[in-house]
Amino acid sequence: MRRTSPMSMSCQIVLHLLFFIASLFSTHASSLCSKDGSVVRNISEIPSGNYGRDGLSHITIAGAVAHGMKEVEVWLHTFAPGARTPIHRHSCEEVFVVLKGAGTLLLGSSSSNSPGTPLEFKIHANSTFTVPINDPHQVWNTNEHEDLQVFVIISRPPIKSFIYKDWSMPHVAAKLKYPIFWDEDCWDSPKDEL
Amino acid sequence: MRRTSPMSMSCQIVLHLLFFIASLFSTHASSLCSKDGSVVRNISEIPSGNYGRDGLSHITIAGAVAHGMKEVEVWLHTFAPGARTPIHRHSCEEVFVVLKGAGTLLLGSSSSNSPGTPLEFKIHANSTFTVPINDPHQVWNTNEHEDLQVFVIISRPPIKSFIYKDWSMPHVAAKLKYPIFWDEDCWDSPKDEL
Repeated sequence: MRRTSPMSMSCQIVLHLLFFIASLFSTHASSLCSKDGSVVRNISEIPSGNYGRDGLSHITIAGAVAHGMKEVEVWLHTFAPGARTPIHRHSCEEVFVVLKGAGTLLLGSSSSNSPGTPLEFKIHANSTFTVPINDPHQVWNTNEHEDLQVFVIISRPPIKSFIYKDWSMPHVAAKLKYPIFWDEDCWDSPKDEL
Repeated sequence: MRRTSPMSMSCQIVLHLLFFIASLFSTHASSLCSKDGSVVRNISEIPSGNYGRDGLSHITIAGAVAHGMKEVEVWLHTFAPGARTPIHRHSCEEVFVVLKGAGTLLLGSSSSNSPGTPLEFKIHANSTFTVPINDPHQVWNTNEHEDLQVFVIISRPPIKSFIYKDWSMPHVAAKLKYPIFWDEDCWDSPKDEL
């Protein structure tokens, strides 16, 4: 019988620990970035996160980067009171369905040099709205007491958002955020932006 | 002062009645097929219908024919116990989000000559599933007591569905249904199918 030296045993323990730590990360990655072919998925088991956005909880229900979608993408966003998206635009269609709460849609112009003073629209549970392609906009939970929860549907995923500091910023100065915050974790190779 | 004859008065009354009846229909048409530019819409005010499908309640939340969408379309479907979609396929992406109830997704093959015996997947509230492009499928409320309610998102609207009589029907024999049931009311001109 071959004896194992104390040194090789320590090596084995260290290796097992490394494998265990690696498996923790790979479990997280596979559930978040699951192109694993599972047909029906439980939304409450899909990881949510704020991805550096205060007051946001985001879930990618069906995504290009996360699940291999090619033409549509569906998110579930929950905004705490006061939370909001950045002012941004994108050259894809976007549909919102408000599930809970209330808030405000701010909609700027794409035909002037900058978004300008935005139009304001009240949004509420059981309402729907569509953001015209390339119109700068912001969704804001202006209700002080209740979360605002919305389904968001976009075309042409993964999304390329151009973010404005304020409504007077020229369109050409808006900064590309690609990949978007929640796509970064599953982003495994540079994508052609054309 | 010019006097109005009894005959012309009757004509006016008849004309007013005709205008009133016409206005009833035009109000219905504008709320169902509203490319009127309203940004935020109340889903409970969007007309629902079964469009000849027993046990179905369909609402087009954002549609190509109804609202001018170009790249995505969103529906709300409610299936009474026992109700189901036809067995069908389409060359667009489709995402379901189950809001209420439970049921079964039946998924056939697109690689054989006919769909064949379908795979069965249980679906339930708070689950999501994606139907691969061109895979024949059927969504069925197999729960005897409760409605099955789902959001449906499709790409490439308006949808062109090919409908099968049963799972053994050859793919080439499936019959095109275009426009789809709920698009017929707002269909105002022949669309190029290419």
